[in-house]
Amino acid sequence: MAILYSKNPYVRYIRRKPWALIGPLAFLLVLYLLLSSSSSPSSSGTNGSKKYSYSKKSRGWFAKNRDSVVLKNLPKNHISHYDLNELTTSSDALAKREEVLILTPMSKFLPQYWENLNKINYDHSLISLGFIIPRNEDGDATLKKLEAAVKKVQSSDAKTKFKKVTILRQDSNSLESQAEKDRHALKVQKERRSMMALARNSLVFTTIAPSTSWVLWLDADIVETPPTLIQDLALHSKPILSCNVYQRYVDESTGQDSIRPYDFNNWVESEEGLKIAAGLSEDDIIVEGYAEMATYRPLMAHFYDANGDKNTEMALDGVGGGAVLVKADVHRDGAMFPSFPFYHLIETEGFAKMAKRLGYEVFGLPNYLVYHYNE
Amino acid sequence: MAILYSKNPYVRYIRRKPWALIGPLAFLLVLYLLLSSSSSPSSSGTNGSKKYSYSKKSRGWFAKNRDSVVLKNLPKNHISHYDLNELTTSSDALAKREEVLILTPMSKFLPQYWENLNKINYDHSLISLGFIIPRNEDGDATLKKLEAAVKKVQSSDAKTKFKKVTILRQDSNSLESQAEKDRHALKVQKERRSMMALARNSLVFTTIAPSTSWVLWLDADIVETPPTLIQDLALHSKPILSCNVYQRYVDESTGQDSIRPYDFNNWVESEEGLKIAAGLSEDDIIVEGYAEMATYRPLMAHFYDANGDKNTEMALDGVGGGAVLVKADVHRDGAMFPSFPFYHLIETEGFAKMAKRLGYEVFGLPNYLVYHYNE
Repeated sequence: MAILYSKNPYVRYIRRKPWALIGPLAFLLVLYLLLSSSSSPSSSGTNGSKKYSYSKKSRGWFAKNRDSVVLKNLPKNHISHYDLNELTTSSDALAKREEVLILTPMSKFLPQYWENLNKINYDHSLISLGFIIPRNEDGDATLKKLEAAVKKVQSSDAKTKFKKVTILRQDSNSLESQAEKDRHALKVQKERRSMMALARNSLVFTTIAPSTSWVLWLDADIVETPPTLIQDLALHSKPILSCNVYQRYVDESTGQDSIRPYDFNNWVESEEGLKIAAGLSEDDIIVEGYAEMATYRPLMAHFYDANGDKNTEMALDGVGGGAVLVKADVHRDGAMFPSFPFYHLIETEGFAKMAKRLGYEVFGLPNYLVYHYNE
Repeated sequence: MAILYSKNPYVRYIRRKPWALIGPLAFLLVLYLLLSSSSSPSSSGTNGSKKYSYSKKSRGWFAKNRDSVVLKNLPKNHISHYDLNELTTSSDALAKREEVLILTPMSKFLPQYWENLNKINYDHSLISLGFIIPRNEDGDATLKKLEAAVKKVQSSDAKTKFKKVTILRQDSNSLESQAEKDRHALKVQKERRSMMALARNSLVFTTIAPSTSWVLWLDADIVETPPTLIQDLALHSKPILSCNVYQRYVDESTGQDSIRPYDFNNWVESEEGLKIAAGLSEDDIIVEGYAEMATYRPLMAHFYDANGDKNTEMALDGVGGGAVLVKADVHRDGAMFPSFPFYHLIETEGFAKMAKRLGYEVFGLPNYLVYHYNE
């Protein structure tokens, strides 16, 4: 006998959301390209040998709790044998040899993305890569290219190869069929981003390791960043820190190379935004860039100052996913990318809100530019 | 120049919640007791050798998407060499050799819990264990005992040892100091459960592997379950399925051994519950068992029928954490344990609500009893 309570208003409510029902991701394919992190301490700076040193002088987040009684209590043979980790997230991440997980949902393989990624000069033996690829024909082609590229790098010498590469395959059939049914931009946007949120969650929660200090979200269409991206962002030691995503283009009027703002998801909440939210029904979302929903939110994209200090910080309420460094503990505490409206926000913007609900602060660097692909 | 928007109401809002600010978990200690899953296919049933077979007849969740073009496209040398996984969560989990991750937040080590855990007769080479232990003196003692117990089991023969054991150490100093400040039961309950939520999130998101099909949440004070617990629950193939937690005791009036309901967090939402929620401010929560907040929610604990079918299912809106089997994809999609009020619910109850927001259904087995420790 199954007792059903169909009067429960929540049950019906959920049934109205087809994308959520079809949405669960199928992990059809998990490739582990595990390569021993035989780290010649090469590019690891002067403290390269201190990987498991338990210095009490550490300047990490949880510094005050470092003098561990626990370590003394442990049977010696276990300590010496297994991965024992004092996890820090500090402004001198590289010197402390903190591990970084770079995560990229990838629908299209751009050689420029791959080249730029490989130029990142944080010690590659401390970097793990994770990709999630949609399950459609484009994804098949993408997987082939990514596979070939990964294979080439990982079979090269120790300096360029990464600690570990994980490729996940997403089941995203549902999105395409949804998109065909309804072409209204806002609705499609909501569904696209909901699927993206599920992809991001699966990616981070499947790949995050006990040894991960930082997670760098780097979108597959980010084709240019400073090679010091990780060091530059970690320097600020913020729970969440977002770069300003711009795009290079040729100005047709002048014929000159120029740049323009690209990602408008890095924003500060506004009175108008809150007013709009207050008037929405539970399942509505606010998305930036639609005239019918003018939030007048200050957008980080517009705060870029070419002559300004690259380290200028700006408190944010919403972030995009272009290039964002996150302390792994923020995700471990449960900060995820809502695929359902969370305070009328989804995906990366909902993530920022959830992190704030968990007590974390969110920042951006308006003068620190990374560049989006221009077709 | 740091641009600060202190007028943002959300910022102040968050600052009022000290537990959330102090809350982040310190992973001071990660023990990896990795043991090769040299699986003598012993207790694995007749399909023991089919671990990576790509049968299209599979009855799993994503069956319709199984005929994978992708697999054919992959370079052969990668397929043969690396962990390639077709992840199912099916009613015949053991026959399909689906991997299970058993997770236990543990403040006290009960030998009865450990004995019962080890009697679980799902193939141990398919089971990984994860523990998180609070960072206080009790936790130190607990860690010692757990360590010793794990060591003993893992150095024994292949039949009883588990695939992998991970022990995390939580930073929970904050809870104790909070608890001292304010002894109001409801407030303490909220803080205790918020900390527990953070612990659960860290535990699941650090230990879940690409190969994990199921997550079994088993509280450290559950001392008696059927040894077929995993098979029995997986049989239902539900996204979330909760057991009914009872307690053995001696009835003082009769002197007879008896049982009584213990966990009241498995419930169905009620009109009254929704009415109370509607009148609460954003940061208030509803907790079962307080007279000042009578929800009249149907509680699964009261639906137990000693003569009823053990497989009777009951749709639920809230769950407890005693013994709950969850499809790993539910967590991968982002279902976590909110440490902040989520629809006025936190921890396991908030988790059930979040899973429903993600489109999953939640069930319980009122006649399937597991037993809580009785001091």
